[in-house]
Amino acid sequence: MANHLRLLLIITFVSVIVLCTSSSVLSKRLRRFPRYTFQNRARIQQFGRDRNEYRYETKYFTQQLDHFSFADLPKFSQRYLINSDHWLGASALGPIFLYCGNEGDIDWFATNSGFIWDIAPKFGALLVFPEHRYYGESMPYGSMKEAYKNATTLAYLTTEQALADFAVFVTDLKRNLSAEACPVVLFGGSYGGMLAAWMRLKYPHIAIGALASSAPILQFEDIVPTETFYDIVSNDFKRESTSCFNTIKNSWDAIVAEGKKENGLMQLTETFRFCRLLNSTDDLSDWLDSAYSYLAMVDYPYSADFMMPLPGHPIKEVCRKIDSAPSDASILDRIYAGISVYYNYTGDVDCFKLDDDPHGLDGWDWQACTEMVMPMSSSQENSMFPADDFNYSSYKEECWNTFRVNPRPRWVTTELGGHDIETTLKSFGSNIIFSNGLLDPWSGGSVLKNLSDTIVALVTKEGAHHLDLRPSTPEDPKWLVEQREAEIRLIQGWIETYRLEKEAKFSQLKRSW
Amino acid sequence: MANHLRLLLIITFVSVIVLCTSSSVLSKRLRRFPRYTFQNRARIQQFGRDRNEYRYETKYFTQQLDHFSFADLPKFSQRYLINSDHWLGASALGPIFLYCGNEGDIDWFATNSGFIWDIAPKFGALLVFPEHRYYGESMPYGSMKEAYKNATTLAYLTTEQALADFAVFVTDLKRNLSAEACPVVLFGGSYGGMLAAWMRLKYPHIAIGALASSAPILQFEDIVPTETFYDIVSNDFKRESTSCFNTIKNSWDAIVAEGKKENGLMQLTETFRFCRLLNSTDDLSDWLDSAYSYLAMVDYPYSADFMMPLPGHPIKEVCRKIDSAPSDASILDRIYAGISVYYNYTGDVDCFKLDDDPHGLDGWDWQACTEMVMPMSSSQENSMFPADDFNYSSYKEECWNTFRVNPRPRWVTTELGGHDIETTLKSFGSNIIFSNGLLDPWSGGSVLKNLSDTIVALVTKEGAHHLDLRPSTPEDPKWLVEQREAEIRLIQGWIETYRLEKEAKFSQLKRSW
Repeated sequence: MANHLRLLLIITFVSVIVLCTSSSVLSKRLRRFPRYTFQNRARIQQFGRDRNEYRYETKYFTQQLDHFSFADLPKFSQRYLINSDHWLGASALGPIFLYCGNEGDIDWFATNSGFIWDIAPKFGALLVFPEHRYYGESMPYGSMKEAYKNATTLAYLTTEQALADFAVFVTDLKRNLSAEACPVVLFGGSYGGMLAAWMRLKYPHIAIGALASSAPILQFEDIVPTETFYDIVSNDFKRESTSCFNTIKNSWDAIVAEGKKENGLMQLTETFRFCRLLNSTDDLSDWLDSAYSYLAMVDYPYSADFMMPLPGHPIKEVCRKIDSAPSDASILDRIYAGISVYYNYTGDVDCFKLDDDPHGLDGWDWQACTEMVMPMSSSQENSMFPADDFNYSSYKEECWNTFRVNPRPRWVTTELGGHDIETTLKSFGSNIIFSNGLLDPWSGGSVLKNLSDTIVALVTKEGAHHLDLRPSTPEDPKWLVEQREAEIRLIQGWIETYRLEKEAKFSQLKRSW
Repeated sequence: MANHLRLLLIITFVSVIVLCTSSSVLSKRLRRFPRYTFQNRARIQQFGRDRNEYRYETKYFTQQLDHFSFADLPKFSQRYLINSDHWLGASALGPIFLYCGNEGDIDWFATNSGFIWDIAPKFGALLVFPEHRYYGESMPYGSMKEAYKNATTLAYLTTEQALADFAVFVTDLKRNLSAEACPVVLFGGSYGGMLAAWMRLKYPHIAIGALASSAPILQFEDIVPTETFYDIVSNDFKRESTSCFNTIKNSWDAIVAEGKKENGLMQLTETFRFCRLLNSTDDLSDWLDSAYSYLAMVDYPYSADFMMPLPGHPIKEVCRKIDSAPSDASILDRIYAGISVYYNYTGDVDCFKLDDDPHGLDGWDWQACTEMVMPMSSSQENSMFPADDFNYSSYKEECWNTFRVNPRPRWVTTELGGHDIETTLKSFGSNIIFSNGLLDPWSGGSVLKNLSDTIVALVTKEGAHHLDLRPSTPEDPKWLVEQREAEIRLIQGWIETYRLEKEAKFSQLKRSW
């Protein structure tokens, strides 16, 4: 399961951006969110819905590089997208919907968060999509090349700075629109969902509520078992077919055994149709590991093009291929048949490039090596992956070798909480929806039960990675329609309560005049 | 009222620490909290209660200089004081009382917060007093000289960094004591009270509640009228004696008129017994302004030695002197008679040094020039001070000339809230006591009414600057005894609720075993 695909990527990355790399191997367990980058964007333009639905202006806002010190640093330009077609305006207390940009181009998130566009007219909402610093066009030091130059320039790529960016941005926006009294509602998926939830915790005065979709805010330290992620991926396959699960579980040894044979790597290269000779079986295992994990995230009930163009219920399709191969097919032929659903659903690919990760390069590697330390392992019992423990020492060493930075693995829970979240949030927080689909391997690190009247978990058994944020389609199953309706009702409740309080305060003021 | 005393201080300060000063004048309106420094400490040792009551160990903890970036900066050593004489221990969920160190030596705060020591046995509490970075011994870059060298080294003297220091410190302490489950209660007075309240807002997972005494968290931007501070000072005098108020109100013109005469400054120097010739009447006015303001803060009902050794009800005493001067006494003789109560209560002073500020030099100037921008003015109608508007442009210019730094006057409310605090805290925060005495001029910038069942204002009409944090004495008036009792009851309630929740969770866990 060694994720050496990541190694390749990182080496490319590192050589491009002139970081010290030597022969370092970035941790296998630097598990990442789906990579949202320009490559996806290009595809979205081909495969997505009519882009005219998502019209917006692109603007820029000047931000401090370090909000929390007065070090003399250059400011940078944060990109944001804005649409006011449906806004009720400031005097009517028209709400502001703010999507918390995550680790990629903001226009990709904007055009992939159809739910927000779908509901904007109903709410009379102003839509804003501020981009996360160090992604897309929001580059400190003028360019990605400069921003990603070394640990000194990357130093300000942190979650707290990004949250502060959002707070400063929307405060200024409201002032400029004379909309100080308008309620802000936060949205976000995946890491963006974590940001939305954390915004609500750290900046309760900035926004009245947050829809945090597929936000694994508990995937830190020992809050959830480190096996959670891979166990869920494995279960997604097992529930479709035990034989499929077993085939995959047995394939890792078969790959290693094949690799040890004379010309074994050549044979594997041919079986899996790689364009170039495999260097090691680890490269193949990582390529498969990555595909299975992403498949679990995007195991949507209808065809979609989130990470890759895929059919509906893609894991079912992968397992159908694995299970329905001719009875004399080898285990590796079966695996190849299955994995082709992920890597070659369109059938356009002649041969696979191991480093052909369509998800590009981004700053998540840095974030994983600094604050976003999410320990992961896989267990022998429940997982279809090879047993693997999380080894923090080597993780740390690899981060040092790659970036010359030391992670702070306990910082996120100190700064943002996470331990004993039930007690803390029940007595403190309010107005957060944690929405999750249980097929999504990230759901194991999220909040899956109601913590109070206003901190609500909306869990769907058949949902995957922030499916609720996608646009509604005629194919939406009932449970998805209902989940979105529940979200709308809750957000309406927040806004109504807020307006009633504002009105009560206003009449109180009027009485005192 | 020009506070040129501050100018002198700053110039000394600046020349010592090699900052660019030129001929800049730090703003008159850089109003500060009482300065808590080693000079006070020395006095406390002479005048204070038996120091044996306050026994503690002094320890040090290594902190990040910038918690919110990964810039390669030297770590620093944060001093903290600890006393575990009465602690119930981790297994009994013994509470941890944490005093949020503010702008001065932490041992001064520890020995001046007798309330916490008084109640520790009752609660079985562990006491910890972490020092605020850049004060006392908690100096980045190894020494005060290096830490205060220039804007680059001072850059990390911010409130958010200090809050993060507390969070990291107590999280580590609890881990080392296996006391993760023990509830933390925060205490703080003045800026320390602001820190306690803000800790509760920003780190609700770290502490279960906060006693924020005399914490003017609303003294920013336009949240409260800028005249509030000086109006309260003025009212403190007026309520003792209208003639005293009027004498002071008329004295400013008298001083200016006297100064314009031939040998006028010489005459004023003699009248007020300065050791050296006055440079301007502004210097005298600032010296008086400073005394009146501090007198209002420490207008305690019994003799105390908080800023200066003073009798009980010192303003009453000042006004008695002013009003009871011989009928032929000039207005300036009366003022001198009054002010001597503040500057020379012990009668030991032969002549006054204008720059004899016993409160020393500290980083508050920097904080006021960066984040802690608290606009203040005085009005013609209600104030006994000369009319004076807050001029942000000159404030900013003066900060630039002194420190080469630009203030961020809107940052505190963006980061920490403040606007519409009622709505925000009602729906979000919990377990904060805002205690205030209405004689304290800082009370005008604090929270003076209950915002919810658990965000409670304890207001005493006759109290002054965080009187409740001082040790109990036989002279305590009934209202002060009652205020402290109410605080104890509320803190008990927080701890009981916390323990019940813990127990409930524990039995729930046991049931599920």
